[in-house]
Amino acid sequence: MAKAGISTRADNYAQWYLDIVDKADLAEPSGVVRGAMVIKPTGYAVWEGIQRGLDQRIKATGHVNAYFPLFIPQSFLQKEAQHVAGFAPEVAVVTHAGGKQLEEPYVVRPTSEAIIGHTYSRWIQSWRDLPVLINQWANVVRWELRPRPFLRTTEFLWQEGHTAHATEAEAEAETLMILHDVYADFVENVMAIPLFRGLKSKRETFAGALRTYAIEAMMQDGRALQSGTSHNLGQNFARAFDITYQTPDNQREHVWTTSWGASTRLIGGLIMVHSDDDGLVLPPRLAPIQVVVVPIYKTEAEKTLVMEAVQRLTGSWAGRFSFKIDDREHLSPGFKYNEWEIKGVPLRVEVGPKDVQKGSVAIARRDIPGRDGKAFVPQDGLAERIADLLEEIQTNLFERARRYRDERTIDVTSYGELAEAVEQGFARAYWAGSDADEAKIQDDLKATIRVIPFDQPEQAGKCVVTGVETTRQVLFARSY
Amino acid sequence: MAKAGISTRADNYAQWYLDIVDKADLAEPSGVVRGAMVIKPTGYAVWEGIQRGLDQRIKATGHVNAYFPLFIPQSFLQKEAQHVAGFAPEVAVVTHAGGKQLEEPYVVRPTSEAIIGHTYSRWIQSWRDLPVLINQWANVVRWELRPRPFLRTTEFLWQEGHTAHATEAEAEAETLMILHDVYADFVENVMAIPLFRGLKSKRETFAGALRTYAIEAMMQDGRALQSGTSHNLGQNFARAFDITYQTPDNQREHVWTTSWGASTRLIGGLIMVHSDDDGLVLPPRLAPIQVVVVPIYKTEAEKTLVMEAVQRLTGSWAGRFSFKIDDREHLSPGFKYNEWEIKGVPLRVEVGPKDVQKGSVAIARRDIPGRDGKAFVPQDGLAERIADLLEEIQTNLFERARRYRDERTIDVTSYGELAEAVEQGFARAYWAGSDADEAKIQDDLKATIRVIPFDQPEQAGKCVVTGVETTRQVLFARSY
Repeated sequence: MAKAGISTRADNYAQWYLDIVDKADLAEPSGVVRGAMVIKPTGYAVWEGIQRGLDQRIKATGHVNAYFPLFIPQSFLQKEAQHVAGFAPEVAVVTHAGGKQLEEPYVVRPTSEAIIGHTYSRWIQSWRDLPVLINQWANVVRWELRPRPFLRTTEFLWQEGHTAHATEAEAEAETLMILHDVYADFVENVMAIPLFRGLKSKRETFAGALRTYAIEAMMQDGRALQSGTSHNLGQNFARAFDITYQTPDNQREHVWTTSWGASTRLIGGLIMVHSDDDGLVLPPRLAPIQVVVVPIYKTEAEKTLVMEAVQRLTGSWAGRFSFKIDDREHLSPGFKYNEWEIKGVPLRVEVGPKDVQKGSVAIARRDIPGRDGKAFVPQDGLAERIADLLEEIQTNLFERARRYRDERTIDVTSYGELAEAVEQGFARAYWAGSDADEAKIQDDLKATIRVIPFDQPEQAGKCVVTGVETTRQVLFARSY
Repeated sequence: MAKAGISTRADNYAQWYLDIVDKADLAEPSGVVRGAMVIKPTGYAVWEGIQRGLDQRIKATGHVNAYFPLFIPQSFLQKEAQHVAGFAPEVAVVTHAGGKQLEEPYVVRPTSEAIIGHTYSRWIQSWRDLPVLINQWANVVRWELRPRPFLRTTEFLWQEGHTAHATEAEAEAETLMILHDVYADFVENVMAIPLFRGLKSKRETFAGALRTYAIEAMMQDGRALQSGTSHNLGQNFARAFDITYQTPDNQREHVWTTSWGASTRLIGGLIMVHSDDDGLVLPPRLAPIQVVVVPIYKTEAEKTLVMEAVQRLTGSWAGRFSFKIDDREHLSPGFKYNEWEIKGVPLRVEVGPKDVQKGSVAIARRDIPGRDGKAFVPQDGLAERIADLLEEIQTNLFERARRYRDERTIDVTSYGELAEAVEQGFARAYWAGSDADEAKIQDDLKATIRVIPFDQPEQAGKCVVTGVETTRQVLFARSY
């Protein structure tokens, strides 16, 4: 057990995760609705940062937001055969409303392809109506058997994009653009989480899609977290919901659709990539509070002196970084340090009477705990110093996570090596196996193909299971 | 029927409203889920403006956002006697999930006092935990028998604030502060909708509240729209959900709670206050697009000339106003004027070859249709001119709506006058009647007490029904 009542990662990784969620005040089980959580203000502020960053990128790439109904007629889900097979077992069903039994039950949306497909069949008539580029911010419900805060909850928050195009090539370009320019750009550059990007195997493809692309991150226990998916749905949903358009030469064609989503699950990834045994660690570009200032004093005279310095020093910070002056009375500086450490604030500035005398302050970095991360710096130029440090922390967190991931991503050439590698990380293997081979590995090793990376080798090698020569490599891992 | 296929207000006000929602591309019935609408991108952009404006004010007054579950155990709703009476008839009920019947059904939240009350009973232990000042952005479901887009839909989007305080005085201050500084400030200053503010009569008080305060606006058919409510819940929910705190002198006390909400309904009010027979009219401070620029040309040479001028003129606009250059090919300028008029864009700038020669442009104001609202102005100083005009339109819309409302707000002294006044507006009456008297008026005249205004007369008068002398005035109206 580490100092703040948090289990250590080494002792009990699963409990460590739950402890961080709890002690950093991010969320808690609702206690009364199976698998549903309450997202507490501290956790929701992180989600607002994620929303802002994704929404900006979604709009910058030409999309607009809209809103579709929460309820979907049960029969709609059945219109796309694979879609219903994938989602029917986990839906919540509304059978009564307004005091009466409904003629047809509604399912609470587990995802919105069905209701949006139905709507697009009304909206789209001509090639002039294309492309349709729409995103929705919404809650969805999927009945999870083993819920875990942020990672798997029966209700979660997400954005789901749904687009329709005239050609397969446009749909494919959209699917990839979202993966790279929206999801990977945000997750790597703002959340500081290094990613593998690629195509999903057929077994891991979204229910009803032609191709699913994903970004996958490695957690500190070596397991993978799928952090965003982008689906080329081909014409499957267009056929199921009869979405057709008239071409310029008066032919009737089905449109090509895509869908893509990222959710509150990202907060689970954020925790498991950066945090340590002392608590949450937030990357500066996402942190709701980037700098906390703790004034230190004992007497009233010291308080006056210190608070005056704090006001002077922070006077120019508004609009430059988000900061909080923790001037709560009756709490010791040590208590405050601890609290902000657990909550992951990237930088702490301490100002005491001696600092005022010397014209200095102490700065402590959250990413480097203890003495190594603490320095006494002059008050002159403090704002620039802080701006530089925030960028340095952002880079450090990304690079540290990347090193961690790369050290635990092992090239394997035999089944034995594969089995060993997935015990503590990702296994990169040549692969020419069948769906059945993949299923067997899942049964045996609890590992699945996370992605077929876009980066592929120039030379061929032997499939780790069949021994067949192939140029295709895949990444295997256990996953959340 | 006006020019754009929109019914006139005079002919058929209810149809005019539906036509505006439809032709301005704001929303449409889902067609498959009873009373649920699809909020289209144009409508959702207006909602995003409302969210932004309210969220800013909610945060500026010390609140933080969080998120609570969509589902509520059915038994929770029953814990507060009046609350269940108010909401039980209109809830949607989930009876099955994950392929099984649930042991206890869940209701889909019609509002979240119950689930949040339950949560606060865990969070609040000591006076140090107070106040709790939390807001939630969410969807809610209420089974409406007579749905109408934005005004009454079975699912709608809203924010709901839920706060807990140590004293009655603090809860009351919070309730009033939200009404004035959040709701009225936003609705009057950004949406340009003049309001009456006051207390609800007992019959119109929120199910479970001690006191409900509301802002009420007059639509162009003289009916009232309740546009935001703020409830002092007293200790009713604290008792129902056992939310207690330890006082500084170690007593156990129930907290005092408030709740307050504003919803997509505001968009219905926006439409019905400002729009005309030509389409939507948006106040500049809320308009997603404030200025549309329509280039006019016939030849390629003219196009080059005009587009160059347009680029030059709009070069400095980014960040100053939101604008769109409508450079779509194959559509006539007249078609474009019409489209942006229907969609309510406050200002249209037309640039043709002659304008380029003369160094002028034409500007048309949406709030003053036809020639009266159109002027030719020099290109020099155009940005300042536009900025001034946008403010002028904002003020004009507010003042126009205020005059309209004031002309139709009649002081009445007899039942006959009351009956006549509510045919076309609000009736201001001295009131010392009972709940039963109020119910009778509702049966007779379809009018209810909208608010007991904060502004009360200095002199007493006779109650419009009982003849009893009183200093209390109320506003009666028919309402949405």
